[in-house]
Amino acid sequence: MPSDPLVPIDLGLLSPVTVGHDALVSDSFVLSALVRAECALVAAYEEVGVAPREARRDIDHTFGIDEKYGNPAAGLEVDRLITESVSGGNPVIPLVGMLKAQVTAEHRAWIHRGATSQDILDTALMIVARRAMDQVRSSLRIAGEWARHLAVTHADDVSAARTLTQHAVPTTLGARAATWARGIERASRRLENLEYPAQLGGAGGTLASFVEITGSEETAAALPAAFARALDLDAPDAPWHVTRWPITELGDALVQAIDALGKVAGDVATLSRTEIGEVSEGVGGGSSAMPQKQNPAEAVLIRSAALRAPQLGATLHLAASLAVDERPDGAWHAEWPTLRELLRLALGATRHAASMLAHLRVDSAAAETNAGLTGGRLVSERLRGVLVPLIGAERFAALLAGDADLAGALKTMPEAAGLDVDALLDPRAYVGLAPWMARAGAGAAQDRRDHTRPDADEDGVER
Amino acid sequence: MPSDPLVPIDLGLLSPVTVGHDALVSDSFVLSALVRAECALVAAYEEVGVAPREARRDIDHTFGIDEKYGNPAAGLEVDRLITESVSGGNPVIPLVGMLKAQVTAEHRAWIHRGATSQDILDTALMIVARRAMDQVRSSLRIAGEWARHLAVTHADDVSAARTLTQHAVPTTLGARAATWARGIERASRRLENLEYPAQLGGAGGTLASFVEITGSEETAAALPAAFARALDLDAPDAPWHVTRWPITELGDALVQAIDALGKVAGDVATLSRTEIGEVSEGVGGGSSAMPQKQNPAEAVLIRSAALRAPQLGATLHLAASLAVDERPDGAWHAEWPTLRELLRLALGATRHAASMLAHLRVDSAAAETNAGLTGGRLVSERLRGVLVPLIGAERFAALLAGDADLAGALKTMPEAAGLDVDALLDPRAYVGLAPWMARAGAGAAQDRRDHTRPDADEDGVER
Amino acid sequence: MPSDPLVPIDLGLLSPVTVGHDALVSDSFVLSALVRAECALVAAYEEVGVAPREARRDIDHTFGIDEKYGNPAAGLEVDRLITESVSGGNPVIPLVGMLKAQVTAEHRAWIHRGATSQDILDTALMIVARRAMDQVRSSLRIAGEWARHLAVTHADDVSAARTLTQHAVPTTLGARAATWARGIERASRRLENLEYPAQLGGAGGTLASFVEITGSEETAAALPAAFARALDLDAPDAPWHVTRWPITELGDALVQAIDALGKVAGDVATLSRTEIGEVSEGVGGGSSAMPQKQNPAEAVLIRSAALRAPQLGATLHLAASLAVDERPDGAWHAEWPTLRELLRLALGATRHAASMLAHLRVDSAAAETNAGLTGGRLVSERLRGVLVPLIGAERFAALLAGDADLAGALKTMPEAAGLDVDALLDPRAYVGLAPWMARAGAGAAQDRRDHTRPDADEDGVER
Amino acid sequence: MPSDPLVPIDLGLLSPVTVGHDALVSDSFVLSALVRAECALVAAYEEVGVAPREARRDIDHTFGIDEKYGNPAAGLEVDRLITESVSGGNPVIPLVGMLKAQVTAEHRAWIHRGATSQDILDTALMIVARRAMDQVRSSLRIAGEWARHLAVTHADDVSAARTLTQHAVPTTLGARAATWARGIERASRRLENLEYPAQLGGAGGTLASFVEITGSEETAAALPAAFARALDLDAPDAPWHVTRWPITELGDALVQAIDALGKVAGDVATLSRTEIGEVSEGVGGGSSAMPQKQNPAEAVLIRSAALRAPQLGATLHLAASLAVDERPDGAWHAEWPTLRELLRLALGATRHAASMLAHLRVDSAAAETNAGLTGGRLVSERLRGVLVPLIGAERFAALLAGDADLAGALKTMPEAAGLDVDALLDPRAYVGLAPWMARAGAGAAQDRRDHTRPDADEDGVER
Repeated sequence: MPSDPLVPIDLGLLSPVTVGHDALVSDSFVLSALVRAECALVAAYEEVGVAPREARRDIDHTFGIDEKYGNPAAGLEVDRLITESVSGGNPVIPLVGMLKAQVTAEHRAWIHRGATSQDILDTALMIVARRAMDQVRSSLRIAGEWARHLAVTHADDVSAARTLTQHAVPTTLGARAATWARGIERASRRLENLEYPAQLGGAGGTLASFVEITGSEETAAALPAAFARALDLDAPDAPWHVTRWPITELGDALVQAIDALGKVAGDVATLSRTEIGEVSEGVGGGSSAMPQKQNPAEAVLIRSAALRAPQLGATLHLAASLAVDERPDGAWHAEWPTLRELLRLALGATRHAASMLAHLRVDSAAAETNAGLTGGRLVSERLRGVLVPLIGAERFAALLAGDADLAGALKTMPEAAGLDVDALLDPRAYVGLAPWMARAGAGAAQDRRDHTRPDADEDGVER
Repeated sequence: MPSDPLVPIDLGLLSPVTVGHDALVSDSFVLSALVRAECALVAAYEEVGVAPREARRDIDHTFGIDEKYGNPAAGLEVDRLITESVSGGNPVIPLVGMLKAQVTAEHRAWIHRGATSQDILDTALMIVARRAMDQVRSSLRIAGEWARHLAVTHADDVSAARTLTQHAVPTTLGARAATWARGIERASRRLENLEYPAQLGGAGGTLASFVEITGSEETAAALPAAFARALDLDAPDAPWHVTRWPITELGDALVQAIDALGKVAGDVATLSRTEIGEVSEGVGGGSSAMPQKQNPAEAVLIRSAALRAPQLGATLHLAASLAVDERPDGAWHAEWPTLRELLRLALGATRHAASMLAHLRVDSAAAETNAGLTGGRLVSERLRGVLVPLIGAERFAALLAGDADLAGALKTMPEAAGLDVDALLDPRAYVGLAPWMARAGAGAAQDRRDHTRPDADEDGVER
Repeated sequence: MPSDPLVPIDLGLLSPVTVGHDALVSDSFVLSALVRAECALVAAYEEVGVAPREARRDIDHTFGIDEKYGNPAAGLEVDRLITESVSGGNPVIPLVGMLKAQVTAEHRAWIHRGATSQDILDTALMIVARRAMDQVRSSLRIAGEWARHLAVTHADDVSAARTLTQHAVPTTLGARAATWARGIERASRRLENLEYPAQLGGAGGTLASFVEITGSEETAAALPAAFARALDLDAPDAPWHVTRWPITELGDALVQAIDALGKVAGDVATLSRTEIGEVSEGVGGGSSAMPQKQNPAEAVLIRSAALRAPQLGATLHLAASLAVDERPDGAWHAEWPTLRELLRLALGATRHAASMLAHLRVDSAAAETNAGLTGGRLVSERLRGVLVPLIGAERFAALLAGDADLAGALKTMPEAAGLDVDALLDPRAYVGLAPWMARAGAGAAQDRRDHTRPDADEDGVER
Repeated sequence: MPSDPLVPIDLGLLSPVTVGHDALVSDSFVLSALVRAECALVAAYEEVGVAPREARRDIDHTFGIDEKYGNPAAGLEVDRLITESVSGGNPVIPLVGMLKAQVTAEHRAWIHRGATSQDILDTALMIVARRAMDQVRSSLRIAGEWARHLAVTHADDVSAARTLTQHAVPTTLGARAATWARGIERASRRLENLEYPAQLGGAGGTLASFVEITGSEETAAALPAAFARALDLDAPDAPWHVTRWPITELGDALVQAIDALGKVAGDVATLSRTEIGEVSEGVGGGSSAMPQKQNPAEAVLIRSAALRAPQLGATLHLAASLAVDERPDGAWHAEWPTLRELLRLALGATRHAASMLAHLRVDSAAAETNAGLTGGRLVSERLRGVLVPLIGAERFAALLAGDADLAGALKTMPEAAGLDVDALLDPRAYVGLAPWMARAGAGAAQDRRDHTRPDADEDGVER
């Protein structure tokens, strides 16, 4: 049906947030995973004692499964495979033919034996997800460590807490970074607890073909776990062709991770504003045309991912709820590119977050200056408690109205004679548990590694 | 600012899926939770030794907290409260004034002391969520039990497994119900593991006001856990004003639960089709105008929820990622009605699912008839393995083409002389592990309760 | 099925953005529209010469259709109606019974005659949408006028154009407001071009019942237009039971309107930041606890709507694409509350936008001060063109690096001797077409009304 | 920052619905459009009399703009360009340097002169969208013609109208196809009315750089229209850097088109069910493993697009509402891949819809058989009107209960003696205006082209 010659659609031109970080979810990686899944099925047959060892060896060798850095899909005509995937609606159908053509006649029959294309594609996506997730988790861990490092370093550096865009009360730069760290930490924990079940159920999810082939219900029942073991995936409790929590739980956790980074990036972007200037990104973002600009370029990229991820997650849920019959009429197909894009965004966003936090320049002096912009009113909450008993609510309101500096006014006010006005107005004296909270997260982190400054090279960028 | 008189917007007229099941998330229940949260703050102050016991007693008594069935919000002018919530953008601001007006002057100062409106609103939403979730979980449990009951009852009843809308291979009605049960079971487990942290951080999330009021960092630090205890919520590890995983994890789990039911409802709707008729809903759905109709009314309602939930979940994630500063400029406000609606849909969908499954009529004979519609071709996968070695692929293809009954053709075919044709074509002989899987889920369920038929009354409807 | 007593779910407690502005989409208004639709069907029958004039008169009188301020639903037991809507899945089924009970036996048969519940519900939603849209459009028009007024008033007031959060080049406050006005204007035009077709097709969308009742294909074919006329709706080209563009086009236009206001609110929130202070909201938003705060309360509410609307719009599209058969199994039901919520958000967001813009305080002096924050570098783009030919790119880069004031440096630089440094650095001299664009939109607006300052009272608030 | 070698991410392996149809939105096509936009800026300068004709000629020649089939991006190092796009966050920054390096020193300065990267990227996306839309509209037109052809051909062929999955009343296959045609037609009209404005505003959207360069406000003001003309785009009324209706209106229209096809595909999938069999796809969809299957493969692919499109549209709206400042901090970047994916889905879905409808096999006999499945009850609505006056409601209900054939029962019923029972029960006699509506759409279509059977080759596939 396709008529135009096959052209790579997406090299990353419109996706700067992921460029250089998304190879693990590329079509060629997915294709390699599809071949790995097919080979693992033969391995599983061998493990349960049904396929001859020679078949497995031969097939593993044919596709380089036995080599450390082999690319099992190396010999495939990718363009033809993709083009031929259209009429049947999925790439496994032409893949099986291509693989069989490469295998000796003697062992050919073991390829894809008893499986349905969904078994292979779902399993391959789990392989891809699991491998990508190692990278996502690693980058997220580094981002979290840098956030905790910032928390400790700036635990006592005062900054205005802003609510609804307005200065509210003092906090510290470190407490803000601890907030970032907590979000990242929570998301990390969820990523750690994900399951990556292999899929093996046959055409209707009943494993009937496997019972037929193995001649035994017990052997057939053992096959999915063997299949999973061969791929280092989790053994499924049952086929999940139309019970799609493995996909949505992955999606939800990825979105949560990106949310956590979106929050960080939103703060970095805001605090980078020319008028605020409490932080700036340490690398990139320069504008040769307008040298005064220090664009928060990584924050912008992370935010671009954060605005897209939730809707991708929603599509996965919709697909799950529309998974009718024993394989649905469109919902399954909608998952593939959506899950891949979500993994891709997570790969890019976590790396940029790690880099952004590793190189973030914090201007504590600017934060302190900002904290003083309202002439002492940043501690109005505290002042209320102290002054209203002395001068009443009405005079208190009058005192705080306008922009005039409060220190002078208070120092000349007889009722305030007994007060240490400078101490009272000092925002550093009204930060509550902010410093403690800034350090607490880091403490918790010490369970994992000695908390000194993370290795300067460790910014999430493989070198 | 509002000019029109206050009119109840939503009584349920446009939300039949939730009617009668959503009182736990109504505005009046939320309002009651807001008052409970305010009272719990006084209790927490008392518990940490700061507020006098008398203040707590007086305030608890004023709002009926000490009564088992009291409605703490009973004395409030709801319309005025809601109207006055607009200018400040949240209902806690007018609420505090109204509560103070009801408390004796002596203890009035303890109301809302040191708190910010977000502390109270977030905490109240956790109270509401937790209470609603008890109901959601209970209904989901019942739905799961009925699904398992169907799985066991129909473990061996053959039905066509349908993939991409077409008959593929045989399965059993019980295996399909077991698929439903597994989705429900997984969602249940996720609901069980949710956390419902109280929120207490003060204006900037630093607890500075509480340090000021209690005169001690240690005491202030103890306050959130005391607050949580008073409400039977989880103690927060820190304020989560802008670390919104408690909201998104709730949302994701609710969406997952609704997904699982959407899958069930989709199958019920499909299997109820006039041409298919393998199941029908046991109650409701009649049409007086067209008596031949047996509308799958509960399935339709559940599906209506399932099509809406994912986008509501996405909104919660967006709000989380846009939670900038120490309180964001809109994202927080976007969460409230969205989370409530998601809870509401879950309350309705789980109840209808429990009822639908409890009363589902399964027509095993119709399923068997359907399985025979393709004249024996439902086992074509098996036939291929048996016949191709005997007659070759070409003749096999010719044999299966068209609609003619296979049994006759095979019985007259010399090459097939040694075959037990009836056994070979019997779909019941090619169901693989379907019966076993149908029973397996029920077995697992026996850890929890003795698996006999669930109480006939237990359909998720409180009586 | 429902067991709990019926409780109003939503009075507006969690929806401050709509409180006081959403009565037009309340359940009671929808219910009234349902009754109007039923009565209009009788009117249509009379108009095409089938029902006796007496039936129409009697029925119109019974339900107060003939009164200017009548509420046609006044006599209905709303709670019972809603409760009884569950088993059949829609409120029209019990409604018809209730209406018939109120009509004299002689004319009773004309109620709902030949119609299907979707005819009545879809039509009622169009009545509601059309009426609400009048209000939305009116508020949006006012918001647009105030934006244009701001554009003209501040056409020449310099402000830093910010890109990726950083000062880029100068613009004017008026040009920014003109940007707001153009977005609003475009959205308004789309709202103006919407169609509100009545729905009348009978059970299967074939009008067979109407052919049977009227005894004539021609008469039946004339009925939908007559029905539409009786309600001041558009005549449908055909039943749209499962061709849902009337819903999605409405939804898209509403989302676009809210987008346009979200952009305005985002700018207002940003420009209101304590550090920026170029605008502040004129009313509301005060914090008694922290008097230094000038919360952009209306901007926050508008943004809360803008974050929710796109996902509601997506749900309507999903429902449209899943509108299978001649009435789908859930997709239709998913539309009702979603469309209502979108209308509601639009009602609230447009009113608040009109009010916010009418009362917006613009601080041109602060904008000018901000424009100077980078010591003249705001015109770096211009300086590059002038200075690089004189001093080369390298010295130019060195000159602009850092924060030092450029004027002094340039005035002592021999190569710059011939330049009018103050003029060169003046951001007001590098605003390009900003003033012209600021005034252009207002000019276009004069086609509609004389553009003087809008009536001070006209802030979108009915008085 | 990127470390891994650049790998093409998406060749189509996970996107069968678009394979072979999406070259027009590939990265290489986008890149070509970026170069075209840069060249058009030079052309615009020349047209308004500012750049020398020689500069334009030289630059056009350098990039092959003057050749009919030239690829302006042919000489670019794509991988390096993409890799270098990350640090500044967009591909235009490295592109400008690469283009300048290819142009003679004399004319180099005209490249990108005065423009901002958003000018070029937004304009390029409009070039891409416009070109892709030609193809989308063409395929949609063909799909619509085939739908109308089906409508006319099967105008009188009876089929059960199904509501909530149940047989309701009779309709005709042609009326159903006419419903498809109306949805497609409406979406087509919206696509026709889209605008594709070029973007040209300079760094802050003020055109200040262009005033500086051209030395004249008038000339600068003329530049955007000249720029648009050079690209055959619409002249913008003003820069739309942060007024994003051109993107969202595109997005909404694309989603609406995909919705319309999703409805068709949903019906095709349903009617293809093994038990229903009223239609089958004419090509593809075979399963060698299970030859009895006739998978509705194109319907499945179209549905996979329809489940994804609404959420992509929502992301565009979110980006529009978050377009703060004069260029936002992430929202703009979120649009690029989202709009491209939506165009891509539309390219694929429309082509498959055209092909699916061109080759659809309709089994009118099966439809008629299905219509009889309820033993005459498909006309129960009609029977009620005729029989209740004769035998009362109670006996009528009893008569229709169960599955027994009605004809026999009625023929022996004395009260029905005067009735022509066969005529009364004939579903073909109760199709109302279905045949007329089936033909009406085709009539309307004749305004456009002579409505005979569309060219058999015209199935949306370029050959």
